[in-house]
Amino acid sequence: MLTLAFDTSSQTASIALLRDDVIIYDVVINSGINHSEVLLTAIDEACRHTGVKTEDIDLFACTLGPGSFTGLRVGISTLKGLLFAAGKPAVGVSTLEALALNVKGNAEVICSVMDAGRGQVYTACYSCDGKGFLNRLCPERVLDPNEIVLNDMSQDTIFVGEGAVKYSEILMEKSKKVKIACSMQQYIRASAVGILGREKFFRNELLSPAGFVPVYLRSADAQPGRGLFEH
Amino acid sequence: MLTLAFDTSSQTASIALLRDDVIIYDVVINSGINHSEVLLTAIDEACRHTGVKTEDIDLFACTLGPGSFTGLRVGISTLKGLLFAAGKPAVGVSTLEALALNVKGNAEVICSVMDAGRGQVYTACYSCDGKGFLNRLCPERVLDPNEIVLNDMSQDTIFVGEGAVKYSEILMEKSKKVKIACSMQQYIRASAVGILGREKFFRNELLSPAGFVPVYLRSADAQPGRGLFEH
Repeated sequence: MLTLAFDTSSQTASIALLRDDVIIYDVVINSGINHSEVLLTAIDEACRHTGVKTEDIDLFACTLGPGSFTGLRVGISTLKGLLFAAGKPAVGVSTLEALALNVKGNAEVICSVMDAGRGQVYTACYSCDGKGFLNRLCPERVLDPNEIVLNDMSQDTIFVGEGAVKYSEILMEKSKKVKIACSMQQYIRASAVGILGREKFFRNELLSPAGFVPVYLRSADAQPGRGLFEH
Repeated sequence: MLTLAFDTSSQTASIALLRDDVIIYDVVINSGINHSEVLLTAIDEACRHTGVKTEDIDLFACTLGPGSFTGLRVGISTLKGLLFAAGKPAVGVSTLEALALNVKGNAEVICSVMDAGRGQVYTACYSCDGKGFLNRLCPERVLDPNEIVLNDMSQDTIFVGEGAVKYSEILMEKSKKVKIACSMQQYIRASAVGILGREKFFRNELLSPAGFVPVYLRSADAQPGRGLFEH
């Protein structure tokens, strides 16, 4: 079973291909170039390097948010286009859960922190159950980083994501058992989106092609009447 | 400072670009296609996506081994070609140390395990010092996985690498404090090669373009008089 996964929810773009549960291609592009310029070229490169034809892909997985408003629109529009053309099943994955997968097994509690701009972060906490799956411990939220509260200060907690780096001083003060994930682990990887997407597929949590929308958590920065360059 | 890093020491190929300590491109290709067919195309794609010209690259970093004999020859030959053309400094990085970086902070001891074929593994153990650098605890070795001995059974130990997955049953029996890194962390990432390469550059541990050779740890499988298809 071939899965194409991608993420454009933050400043990076990432594309992955999985053959069953094996990652056969995984790229993260952090070039500052517009997601809409990067995404289809990078999907094409992934397919060429692995000898995969788009008609062979059995499942599409994409992050639904939270994240960059424009980035999420690019990802979700591309997903809808691919679904329309290919007629294959699709799944949507949380960006915060994909980020948590980068450091699975690293601490008792994983707290994903994405930079939401305007001094805020998107955040959620996870633990790993006995079968190796991530369990979300709280709702996904948009917060001032000072408002993040650890449920149990005695537990080892790792913060992961570019928001965790940006606000590391604030987060390190939460408890002595806190650490920040290393630089290699800060990016959302489409391979994680693919792994989580496959889990959703096998639980039959499929997207309805017509109906799905981004998960913004916060009202849109870009609204009618607001200048294009304000956000 | 721009760093181009790559690895072709195992079944995967990986290419990364770093601008100072920021990873701007990182790809892992696990397609089964010959490294020599993949490497230069993928370097070209990395440069195009990031707007980097090869003449702008300030440092080249490549894995020197241990690993696949043919893969290492492809990587090192490409590195020598790039150095000859560009006249920029180069550093060589251990594949086992690059692998360890994937799970830095994950356990007290990190044990990298690469599949060496013929029922053997390439392995070395690392701990993380107070400044966040990896310290190797033992020489790099080629061993039967049954011969791996943990120095201290009371320490949390994580095994990482495709060899760790292949021999997970044997490794899990070494101690109750052992875990195996998750699937996303098993591949050598060129971004790790770039991060370690920069550390070497700042310690002035540069390669002499004419003199450097792969680190095989074991005598070559491919020798004059042996059939091409025996290894």
